[in-house]
Amino acid sequence: MKLPLGFRYSSVYAGIRKVAKDDVALIVSDAPASAAAVFTQNRVQAAPVRIARWNLSKSRGLVSAVLINAGNANCATRTGDRVALASCEAVADHLHVSPVQVFPASTGVIGVELDPHLIVNALPKLIAGLAPDRFEDAARAILTTDLVMKTARAPVRLKKGAVHIAGMTKGSGMIHPNMATTLGFVMLDAAIPPAALGAMLRTAVNRSYNRISVDGDTSTNDTMLVLANGASGIQPNQRESKKVEEALAQVMEDLARQIVRDGEGARKLVTIEITGASNEAAATQIARSIANSPLVKTAIAGSDPNWGRILSAAGNAGVALDPSKVDIDLQGVSVCRGGLAADFSESELKKKLDEPECLIRFAISGKGKGASRFWTCDLTEKYIEINASYRT
Amino acid sequence: MKLPLGFRYSSVYAGIRKVAKDDVALIVSDAPASAAAVFTQNRVQAAPVRIARWNLSKSRGLVSAVLINAGNANCATRTGDRVALASCEAVADHLHVSPVQVFPASTGVIGVELDPHLIVNALPKLIAGLAPDRFEDAARAILTTDLVMKTARAPVRLKKGAVHIAGMTKGSGMIHPNMATTLGFVMLDAAIPPAALGAMLRTAVNRSYNRISVDGDTSTNDTMLVLANGASGIQPNQRESKKVEEALAQVMEDLARQIVRDGEGARKLVTIEITGASNEAAATQIARSIANSPLVKTAIAGSDPNWGRILSAAGNAGVALDPSKVDIDLQGVSVCRGGLAADFSESELKKKLDEPECLIRFAISGKGKGASRFWTCDLTEKYIEINASYRT
Repeated sequence: MKLPLGFRYSSVYAGIRKVAKDDVALIVSDAPASAAAVFTQNRVQAAPVRIARWNLSKSRGLVSAVLINAGNANCATRTGDRVALASCEAVADHLHVSPVQVFPASTGVIGVELDPHLIVNALPKLIAGLAPDRFEDAARAILTTDLVMKTARAPVRLKKGAVHIAGMTKGSGMIHPNMATTLGFVMLDAAIPPAALGAMLRTAVNRSYNRISVDGDTSTNDTMLVLANGASGIQPNQRESKKVEEALAQVMEDLARQIVRDGEGARKLVTIEITGASNEAAATQIARSIANSPLVKTAIAGSDPNWGRILSAAGNAGVALDPSKVDIDLQGVSVCRGGLAADFSESELKKKLDEPECLIRFAISGKGKGASRFWTCDLTEKYIEINASYRT
Repeated sequence: MKLPLGFRYSSVYAGIRKVAKDDVALIVSDAPASAAAVFTQNRVQAAPVRIARWNLSKSRGLVSAVLINAGNANCATRTGDRVALASCEAVADHLHVSPVQVFPASTGVIGVELDPHLIVNALPKLIAGLAPDRFEDAARAILTTDLVMKTARAPVRLKKGAVHIAGMTKGSGMIHPNMATTLGFVMLDAAIPPAALGAMLRTAVNRSYNRISVDGDTSTNDTMLVLANGASGIQPNQRESKKVEEALAQVMEDLARQIVRDGEGARKLVTIEITGASNEAAATQIARSIANSPLVKTAIAGSDPNWGRILSAAGNAGVALDPSKVDIDLQGVSVCRGGLAADFSESELKKKLDEPECLIRFAISGKGKGASRFWTCDLTEKYIEINASYRT
């Protein structure tokens, strides 16, 4: 599938992480692109989040370059803001653009000073390496505990021709809804003004990144950025904008699901479908409560059709729930009807739960039309192993 | 330490759990005791919770007997209410008391029908076994995945003599604040009317069971009951009531800490102390967010002084927080000052974090007087192992 026009990518190893694996990535748009972003809602925000927000406001939503480093979050550091500003300025100098059109993002350990010289010294090689086809190199350089690269692409056919969307993302722990929840960068070569792009992004985030959870934790650095540079020469009309928005949401849903599938220690992708709640918000709250329950997630790890834990987690969602109206299906098998045990073969269902994807359907009978889909993963011993020794 | 006067205890194996370990316990007060209880806030509530609430209201806060079974939660079952009612009636018949003075409680698997005959058939032996010194037998019979029995006792010296408090509790997973969070039964031989006892219980729960968390999950069966039978012949005056309330809170804090220490898979008891928040509620919210963060809990399991995760979890508490005003100490070692890394020896601190108790001090500088203490445990591979195979 084609990449969007007018973007170039690069990555190098700057010596920020201990292992010699590319740790700085650069995304450049040939012409300043319309940009929209959402950021973490954590009260503790990393320096690059503050500077990115500031730059985006100063540039009135225009971005020429995105500078990303992995291995150090540049958060809770003495020199945080200065390092982020100096890095953006150095990139701007090299590219002859305004520093406020450079968008910084960092991911990695919190509370360790980030040496700006590492980035500045790596810039000449980083910029020399820029090429339209190095998209995947950049996508790999932004990873931390991720086991796999996460990218998604989609063409959108419009009347005057096709525009293209390509996104990359990272994250496998600290994933939690209601924020960007990770780093994500989506490029698009349609011409869309920043305000309209912002509305599209919020719709898409609400259907994707805000509907996933790995461990209920939320990082200080979460950032999701969308760039639309118009390099295709195509400006979608109002009707076509809906089509672009839908494709953007699909790409971001795809990326979000990849994050959960690669959740730290996860062996299974769990999809939770709620129907019959009083409204979508209530449905999402029930889904989230199930998705965040360690008891549900460990039961799925053990292929245990323990629907009582699902019902109990739903009861903790903080929304009204009449258990006698609840039907639960696991892998298409009815396990609970009207809040009571259904008749099913436990051994057969156990086998079905060994599959790499698990579907929980939670239907509330009655008049409610509120529905929601949510993704999480199982909770395994490996999650503990990874997180008990991440830093040392 | 002496047990409160006027209570008898018993336990038998009724065949509810698979292993032949006592699974039904009975606590009898020689005279009807003043009673106060708090229950789970889960929207899905087990039959014994409903019946206990109903009986307590019908009896105007008097309890003569407490019937507890382990191995089956009697929740999300067709016959739940009937089984709970029939069991209470059978106990009442044997003891010649009113059925509404019998308080039922269950713990175990959800969604499996509980055969009432198992309990009814076990009653003659259970009642024949009643004795004032079988307190610990009852305390052992109510356990499920607990590794150790959990009891606490305290004498309270008043002007006219001593009254005695003794409590037993169970629970090691599904522990979360803002409900009774587990089964707990506290006996007291002072004479205290039900309403006053209820006020004491709420104060004590708020300082104990509402300040602990193992995995952020909350059961359908959580119940905390206090009985005051007056068998000591002593009725505390108003000033003495404060002393009794304080002793009750101490006993319940002791029981609550034992639950966390025995948290499923836990190797370490973690105490979190917050100071300088705007008020006690904000302090507790910050403490709870730290206590519930899987990233903090796994770092402690790995003896990793990863204070950035503590700061980030605090930032997610949903209350205003200026990270530049935060000081964090781990095991008495300063690791973060003003939101930034302090100078400390990582290898020495790592050794201190290997100890079985971990103290996190989180101090916000400024004018705030809000303080809170909270207890949790580390999150280890063992938690997963236990919960991936609980049922099967």
